[in-house]
Amino acid sequence: MESVKDKCAVVGIGETEYSRDSGRTERSLALEAIKKAIEDAGLRPGDIDGIVKYAVQPETETDLAACLGIRHLSYFGEAGFAGGAGAALVRQAVQAIVTGAATNVVVFRAVNGRSGKRYGRGEVTGRGGRGDAAFSEPFGLIAPGQGAAMSARRHMHDYGTTSRQLGAIAVACRKHAARNPRALLRDPITLEDHQNSRIIYDPLHMLDCCYEADGAGALVITSADRARALKQRPAYIMATVQAAPGGGDGAHDRTETSAKHKVFAAAGVSPGDMDVVQIYDHFTPWVLMAIEDYGFCKRGEGGPFVEGGRIELGGGLPLNTSGGHLSEAYLQGMNHMIEAVRQLRGTSTAQVEGAELVLVDTAAGALILRR
Amino acid sequence: MESVKDKCAVVGIGETEYSRDSGRTERSLALEAIKKAIEDAGLRPGDIDGIVKYAVQPETETDLAACLGIRHLSYFGEAGFAGGAGAALVRQAVQAIVTGAATNVVVFRAVNGRSGKRYGRGEVTGRGGRGDAAFSEPFGLIAPGQGAAMSARRHMHDYGTTSRQLGAIAVACRKHAARNPRALLRDPITLEDHQNSRIIYDPLHMLDCCYEADGAGALVITSADRARALKQRPAYIMATVQAAPGGGDGAHDRTETSAKHKVFAAAGVSPGDMDVVQIYDHFTPWVLMAIEDYGFCKRGEGGPFVEGGRIELGGGLPLNTSGGHLSEAYLQGMNHMIEAVRQLRGTSTAQVEGAELVLVDTAAGALILRR
Repeated sequence: MESVKDKCAVVGIGETEYSRDSGRTERSLALEAIKKAIEDAGLRPGDIDGIVKYAVQPETETDLAACLGIRHLSYFGEAGFAGGAGAALVRQAVQAIVTGAATNVVVFRAVNGRSGKRYGRGEVTGRGGRGDAAFSEPFGLIAPGQGAAMSARRHMHDYGTTSRQLGAIAVACRKHAARNPRALLRDPITLEDHQNSRIIYDPLHMLDCCYEADGAGALVITSADRARALKQRPAYIMATVQAAPGGGDGAHDRTETSAKHKVFAAAGVSPGDMDVVQIYDHFTPWVLMAIEDYGFCKRGEGGPFVEGGRIELGGGLPLNTSGGHLSEAYLQGMNHMIEAVRQLRGTSTAQVEGAELVLVDTAAGALILRR
Repeated sequence: MESVKDKCAVVGIGETEYSRDSGRTERSLALEAIKKAIEDAGLRPGDIDGIVKYAVQPETETDLAACLGIRHLSYFGEAGFAGGAGAALVRQAVQAIVTGAATNVVVFRAVNGRSGKRYGRGEVTGRGGRGDAAFSEPFGLIAPGQGAAMSARRHMHDYGTTSRQLGAIAVACRKHAARNPRALLRDPITLEDHQNSRIIYDPLHMLDCCYEADGAGALVITSADRARALKQRPAYIMATVQAAPGGGDGAHDRTETSAKHKVFAAAGVSPGDMDVVQIYDHFTPWVLMAIEDYGFCKRGEGGPFVEGGRIELGGGLPLNTSGGHLSEAYLQGMNHMIEAVRQLRGTSTAQVEGAELVLVDTAAGALILRR
C-alpha cells in the first residue's frame, strides 16, 4: 500500500460564467472550462492524457478529447452518486497519476442545470425493480429536497435544531456571495428573510435550497513534481476519501457518523487545523450535519455551532467562501473544489488570510488540500 | 510514479448461467455472480470494500452494497465506452488497492442482453448535438455492426482480406465453445456454414456477429500479498492499459495502430510470450485487426494469420477458449476476463497446457495476467 499524500496537486482551475440560461450546449460549456483550466495551469491541451468525469455527465471522453485536440487518452474514468462524485473523481485522477496511467488529468462538470434539466425537481425513475428507488418512489419521495427535509426534521426532533439555525448557513453563504462577482445571488439576506421565504419542503424554506444554474468548472491535476514547475502555486492534495455507506449515501441514516471523517486521518491533520471549509450545500441541513460528521462539533450540536457568525469570513470556521451552491451556483461540488484552490492561492473574493489547509466536502466524499 | 506490475491479482471469479431469457432482473444476476466470485475467493461479502462497474450498468453501488451486506464502500468507480470498459475497471481496482483506497474490490457486469435491451440493434440516441453521434446517425449508422462492417470493408480493400478469413475466427470460437457447457452456441460450424449464413451488414455474415445473451460475471481483485493466503491460485495482474484514441476508440480509423499494444511494455513481456489470448469479439473483423494492433502479425496480415487453425486450441495462438462473445455469450468482455483466469488456474474446458501468460483485449483497453 502506497500513500498518495501530497503526491499530486491541482495546478489549473477554469470556470465559465454561471448563468440562468447559458444558451449553449453542456459540451460547449465543458470545453470552455477545460480549456481555461489547462491555460491556467500553463499547459496545452495536448499535454492532457486523462479525463475523469461525473457519471451523470453525458458527454464522452472520446468526443471531448477530439474537440480538445488530444490524440490519446491513457486514462478515463467516472464516478456515480450524481453531484456527489467530486472527491471520487479527484481520487481517480491521483491514482492514475501516482500509478503512471496518466500525467495530466482533467476533472470537470458542465450543466445546464437551470435552463435544461432541473435536478432539484427530481423524477420518477421507474427503477422500482432496481433498488434504492423501490423504497422511496412509491411513497412520493422523488425530489432530493424531500429527503433533506426528512433528515432536517429528524435532527430537529432529536436535538432541538431550529429552522433559524439552518438559516444561519444560508445567511453566511449569501454574505460571501455578495463579494463574489461570479455568484448568481448577491443581495444580502437576513435570518428574517430566510424565515419569510416560502416553504418548499417542510421544514425547508426556499432559502435552504441551492440555486440551480448553468455553467461548467474544471480542474487540472498533475504530480507534485511537475506541479512545482508550472505557472500557479500548487494546491497539494493531502487526502481524498470516498464514502458510500451501505443502504444509502448517509441520507437515510444520519444517526450514523459518515465515513468521510477518515479524510483527516488520511491527511494526518485534525478538524481544528482547517483554515476554511467548503461543504456541499444543496440543502442547508446537509451542511449542518456534515459539520457534525467531520467532528467540528459533537453530534446534535451543529445548530448552535453555526450561529453567531462562526461560519462567516472572520469567524472560527469560514464556510463556502464563494457563496457555495446556495448563492454562487449549484455546480455539484465543482465550484467548491475550485474555490478551495483559490483560497490556497490567496485569490478568493472572500479570502481567509494565509489559508493553508482547506477541507472540501463533496457529499459522497471529501478531500483536504494544502498550500 | 509507482508501477503496479504484479501488485494485485484476480482471486475470485463468478458467473450466472448464460441464457436467452434469464427471467430475472439484471440486479439479481449481478448479485448472484458477485456472491459466487466472493465465495470462490474464500471471502465473505463483508470483506469487500470496493465496487467498480461498467458505466452502462444502471444498478448503483450503494444498492448492491446494501443487498450484499457491505456496510461501507471506500472505493466506487465506473468507466465508459459501454462494453469496452473491462480493462479500465480492472485498472481502477488495482489503483484503488495499491493506493490504499480499498482492500478487496469487485468488478462485475450483468445484462439481460437478449431478453432485454439488445445492444446490437443500436438506437437513435438523439445526441446529435453532443458529439460522436452527430457524425454518424444522420447517415443511418446506428448499430455497432455497421461500423464493424465498414472497418472490415476497408481492410478488405487495403489488404485483400477475405470473408472466409473472418470466418476462420468464427469457426475457432465455435470449436472452443463446443467443449464448454456454459456456451450458448455449441454446434460445430464450418467455413461453408459461415459463408452460407445470411448477410447482416455487408460484408458481415450472421456468424461474424456475437451472440447476445442474458447473464452476469464478476471478479474479485485484491493485493498480491493477500492473494497468496486465499483459496485459489492467484491470477496476477501484470499490466492494464486503457486506450481511447482521439476521435474514436479505434473504430473510425483502423489504419492507426491502437495504443493498446503498450500493455506489453508495461508488463515487460512480448506478444510471442502469450500462451493464450482472449480478444473482444463482438464482430470478427475486430478480432483480426486487434491481432494486428498487438503485433502478433504485421498490419494487413491478419487474414492469412488466422487461417489454418493457428488460433484454435493446439495452434500457435489459441484464442477465445471459452467460445468468446461469438459462441459462449456476449458478456461485454467480462467472460473473456473470467476465462483468462480459468486458463491460469488450469480449469478451462479448452485448457492450454501449462498456460502462464494470457492477454485479454477488452476493446477500449487490455490486460495481461500471469500465473
